Amino acid sequence: MTRAAIVGATGYSGAELCALLARHHHVEIVSLFSSGGKDARAVRFARLHPLLGGSTGPDAEPFSLERLKATRPDVVFLATPNETSAELAPKILESGAKVIDISGAFRLREAAAYPKWYGFEHPAPWLLAEAVYGLTEWCGGELSGARLVANPGCYSTSILLALKPVLPLLAKGQAVICDSVSGVSGAGKKSDVAYSFSEVEGNFKAYGVGVHRHEPEMRQDLGLSADAPFVFVPHLLPTVRGILSTLHVSFAQPQTPNVLAAAYEKPYAATPFVRVRAAGELPELRDVVGTPRAEIGFALLPGGRRGVLVSVIDNLLKGAASSAVQNMNRVFGHPETEGLA
Amino acid sequence: MTRAAIVGATGYSGAELCALLARHHHVEIVSLFSSGGKDARAVRFARLHPLLGGSTGPDAEPFSLERLKATRPDVVFLATPNETSAELAPKILESGAKVIDISGAFRLREAAAYPKWYGFEHPAPWLLAEAVYGLTEWCGGELSGARLVANPGCYSTSILLALKPVLPLLAKGQAVICDSVSGVSGAGKKSDVAYSFSEVEGNFKAYGVGVHRHEPEMRQDLGLSADAPFVFVPHLLPTVRGILSTLHVSFAQPQTPNVLAAAYEKPYAATPFVRVRAAGELPELRDVVGTPRAEIGFALLPGGRRGVLVSVIDNLLKGAASSAVQNMNRVFGHPETEGLA
Amino acid sequence: MTRAAIVGATGYSGAELCALLARHHHVEIVSLFSSGGKDARAVRFARLHPLLGGSTGPDAEPFSLERLKATRPDVVFLATPNETSAELAPKILESGAKVIDISGAFRLREAAAYPKWYGFEHPAPWLLAEAVYGLTEWCGGELSGARLVANPGCYSTSILLALKPVLPLLAKGQAVICDSVSGVSGAGKKSDVAYSFSEVEGNFKAYGVGVHRHEPEMRQDLGLSADAPFVFVPHLLPTVRGILSTLHVSFAQPQTPNVLAAAYEKPYAATPFVRVRAAGELPELRDVVGTPRAEIGFALLPGGRRGVLVSVIDNLLKGAASSAVQNMNRVFGHPETEGLA
Amino acid sequence: MTRAAIVGATGYSGAELCALLARHHHVEIVSLFSSGGKDARAVRFARLHPLLGGSTGPDAEPFSLERLKATRPDVVFLATPNETSAELAPKILESGAKVIDISGAFRLREAAAYPKWYGFEHPAPWLLAEAVYGLTEWCGGELSGARLVANPGCYSTSILLALKPVLPLLAKGQAVICDSVSGVSGAGKKSDVAYSFSEVEGNFKAYGVGVHRHEPEMRQDLGLSADAPFVFVPHLLPTVRGILSTLHVSFAQPQTPNVLAAAYEKPYAATPFVRVRAAGELPELRDVVGTPRAEIGFALLPGGRRGVLVSVIDNLLKGAASSAVQNMNRVFGHPETEGLA
Repeated sequence: MTRAAIVGATGYSGAELCALLARHHHVEIVSLFSSGGKDARAVRFARLHPLLGGSTGPDAEPFSLERLKATRPDVVFLATPNETSAELAPKILESGAKVIDISGAFRLREAAAYPKWYGFEHPAPWLLAEAVYGLTEWCGGELSGARLVANPGCYSTSILLALKPVLPLLAKGQAVICDSVSGVSGAGKKSDVAYSFSEVEGNFKAYGVGVHRHEPEMRQDLGLSADAPFVFVPHLLPTVRGILSTLHVSFAQPQTPNVLAAAYEKPYAATPFVRVRAAGELPELRDVVGTPRAEIGFALLPGGRRGVLVSVIDNLLKGAASSAVQNMNRVFGHPETEGLA
Repeated sequence: MTRAAIVGATGYSGAELCALLARHHHVEIVSLFSSGGKDARAVRFARLHPLLGGSTGPDAEPFSLERLKATRPDVVFLATPNETSAELAPKILESGAKVIDISGAFRLREAAAYPKWYGFEHPAPWLLAEAVYGLTEWCGGELSGARLVANPGCYSTSILLALKPVLPLLAKGQAVICDSVSGVSGAGKKSDVAYSFSEVEGNFKAYGVGVHRHEPEMRQDLGLSADAPFVFVPHLLPTVRGILSTLHVSFAQPQTPNVLAAAYEKPYAATPFVRVRAAGELPELRDVVGTPRAEIGFALLPGGRRGVLVSVIDNLLKGAASSAVQNMNRVFGHPETEGLA
Repeated sequence: MTRAAIVGATGYSGAELCALLARHHHVEIVSLFSSGGKDARAVRFARLHPLLGGSTGPDAEPFSLERLKATRPDVVFLATPNETSAELAPKILESGAKVIDISGAFRLREAAAYPKWYGFEHPAPWLLAEAVYGLTEWCGGELSGARLVANPGCYSTSILLALKPVLPLLAKGQAVICDSVSGVSGAGKKSDVAYSFSEVEGNFKAYGVGVHRHEPEMRQDLGLSADAPFVFVPHLLPTVRGILSTLHVSFAQPQTPNVLAAAYEKPYAATPFVRVRAAGELPELRDVVGTPRAEIGFALLPGGRRGVLVSVIDNLLKGAASSAVQNMNRVFGHPETEGLA
Repeated sequence: MTRAAIVGATGYSGAELCALLARHHHVEIVSLFSSGGKDARAVRFARLHPLLGGSTGPDAEPFSLERLKATRPDVVFLATPNETSAELAPKILESGAKVIDISGAFRLREAAAYPKWYGFEHPAPWLLAEAVYGLTEWCGGELSGARLVANPGCYSTSILLALKPVLPLLAKGQAVICDSVSGVSGAGKKSDVAYSFSEVEGNFKAYGVGVHRHEPEMRQDLGLSADAPFVFVPHLLPTVRGILSTLHVSFAQPQTPNVLAAAYEKPYAATPFVRVRAAGELPELRDVVGTPRAEIGFALLPGGRRGVLVSVIDNLLKGAASSAVQNMNRVFGHPETEGLA
């Protein structure tokens, strides 16, 4: 049994983690913590997530490093703000536990990028090279035994899974355009009038053009320089959950549906949580909300030079909690689908 | 022209007031203020409400009593928190302007009720007897020339308009049950996680059973003692706007649709903003959202001893802003429908 | 292993049944059918419910009694329209399989009630006495080995679970008032403009006052005559899933929270899927959406003579599919929580 | 006074037209018709739109050409299906009335395009050259006195208004990418399970890639050949109203915010219903829902070679009804803002 703890268990991603780990056959939840701050009150286990309604487990306590250590976890999931994760991770690693971080604190390799994109000096730059960027399906063997996993951003997961298989087919120098929409839970559990029901319901907006934090991690993973024409525009969707990304690409040569299907088949044929649709069949948000899957569809425009790729995930699951559990399974050698199927 | 000012113009009810007064032929908006506090920054007139998009008018400034007085309003609308209204009203009245208060600060006649229901000692108890409880259709002549109008609560408006016409027909001692639902804008423009989109969407809940502030004003208006069996249960509806109240009543004698229709006909036949439906035809929320109307329907259960009354209003209009303008029209002798039709 | 078939697998309740049975350790799904009619096309198993995304199982075929029999089910779930269920059930029982019917076809004991409430002559009146009204927690031993289970209506489940424990405490002759709200999936998967997004979103309405089909089954189960003062008003809530019922009751004697808590404790202490909250703590819709649980709360009004009961369920689960699986577990002697926990 | 009739008054756009024309000072509504078909029953004037609640006017009757002619309209608004409009328009024109058509029946100049894009042979090809494509702000004098106005598609309006001012600045041969989202009312008032609340709520999807009917009218208006790289992907948004388009463009030269601001200033400075935001300030859906305005924002990406344009309208107003009234005002020489401000 893997002894697991969660910091940030009272947030949306943290609560999903609780629900997933509670039914994982090789995991024992040894302790749960809220991230501290205003949120800092105990919450009964059965109140953390509707699916835990009748069950028993440790209540979520206000965070204390001592208490965390005292529960001797093998792995600590950090569902905490970026700066909190950056400060906690080295302390937890020191204690011998592994860390799976859902925040952006260890996604960028360059410490110098943190002040610009995240607004703080990175307190543990020496860990950035060690952290595995946990886009599970593209990780190969690096996850096995890894000490520190940086879970990808939710937008990044939806975009990279759709884009990476066709990257070798794209026309050099032509822009890749990504218009993504995300449900409101992506913003976390927040007292912010901008995310209040009365402001969001019936509304839709683009935001963060050119300044969203998921952009540099995508460029890094794709091997694109800062001035390569890669455009990412996130939008706030009036739903609670889910991300849909519509990607626009240009191919170096006219393509056929079969070539594209084969390009997706190669990396994903054997993966349990990425499903590629038949050519021209585009997935919808509700195909994946509540599931640990990504679904990807593609359509070729007349002439075959341009393609539209559509990718959907549940931002709290494949975009955060289920992907973190998938990564934990790989780290500890559990079956990849355990706790998720 | 009536010179009007609004305090709290950046909140939801205040913004509706701006939009209504901007098209009122006998009103000039002389100044607009946010209620102060965190909200205290200037907001351009054209940004206060989508309907003001292209128009010009005074920007909303952080509140200042001096600035307010300097603009010499004839009437000041208070779309402010209860305690703020209670403190501002006497100062504004002193300056010679009339006050139409959308908060609960002047709805209860007994100063002693304020600590219990509103959590503060009333700072101007001498005004409670003077304030006209502005349930317009039941006001008769009191509004004409009134100095201080206490606009009824939104729930109260929806319930009282449906209940008062049939009150003489009810069985003594039998409970009146009011299950009401309200859209989220009723809670105001707030940074409160309880009203965040992710918490409200797809949810529904009862709240404030036995402790909601609109209950004492309804009992007072209906002439019911504190222990008369009058039950009011508000519920939070995942929409932005609208209140629907479902009322359950027992009649002293078996009733017929015609008697009930006549009971409603009497007070409302000549009113511009209350519409009573044919027997058995129940209004829906969307019949009134965006309008200054209340709509009322009723159904008799077999035997004619029990009735179900359904009443709908837009909480920000007939439940707040349009009702305030209707009251202002009466106070100043403008046509009752001016600015509202 | 219990061999199970579903007729109506492409509707909302049927799809939930598929997802539940697919993870049931003692069930093998042997065949799935749509209910026929316009809906009559094959649907791939993996497309029936998002949770089945990656899995394999029988596709849903247009209904054929021969095909159904050929798959030799031990139990057939009917998630079909009332009249279809009434006609299919006797044929299926004849073939030796048991039937769990989610429709209203076998809920009323009096055949004479069907033309009035359901609009058709009952084609198999001899089965009405045999059918077990499957309000699981109140069934005692009748479910064990039963041939025909009539699953209660979704509104009925939410109301009866909250009301039955306190029934002995109620004042005789005083009305019980039930205002219930239901998400739109309760109306089924329908091409009906009344349930279109543009009509429902932002709306709320009462409907079916005095004529809703769940009323006679509740009166029957509660032992109330047709003229006992029991009022049920359903409302359409702009959410997809969930029922919340607010019940108003009068007690014969003034009550205390402890007495009420004890009244609920007795029937539900040992049940896995009914949770009663502490006095004054009212459950919300999202506490149970996506779960097989009912949650019940109660509040006493000052004086203790009147109470407000609030009950929540997921209409597609405890109001239909999970309750049907719970009943199947009882019929076949499987652990009650199997497939549901 | 202009005598106006509406065919299709019971649909969403038609109802908005009724509400707008009812308050137009130079219009008298002489007759209203539903489009016939299943919808063919009379609807009382006061029930056509919430804003008409208390008012009087002609009820909407099932369509009859004779009745229409008998009411001697000067102008007939067609809010009818494409094929219906194509067949009605010549008959109405013959009677001497002008036609403003909200459908796509007269938007394309080439009759040959209709079978491909609309699925029918055009019954009145001789009118295609005469019809004025009514993108009001770009119409110059053609609208004055026009007999037949083809109102642009809702998506087209949102995209063209944002794109046309910067077209001269774009790099030749580089793709223009348009990701648009539309509220569900854009699909009309339909009995279609695909637009039912339970299917749409919480969902989001792309649809019609490469086959949407608004694409050819945009290419035609922009002067783009069928193989010019112009990509339009519509998405279905879970709101009732509103369109937001996110456009991605490449400039021939690096641009500055000032140049772009000037490009937008020129055509729109004097227009009452197009508002351009300051550089980098992007409009949101709720800025325009319920209004007759389009709002446009733009952001330059680092380097100035690429831009993101965001455009929002209310699909039922600027995307249909208010734009039709704006066009009628121009045709008959009424002030452009009459009935709309």
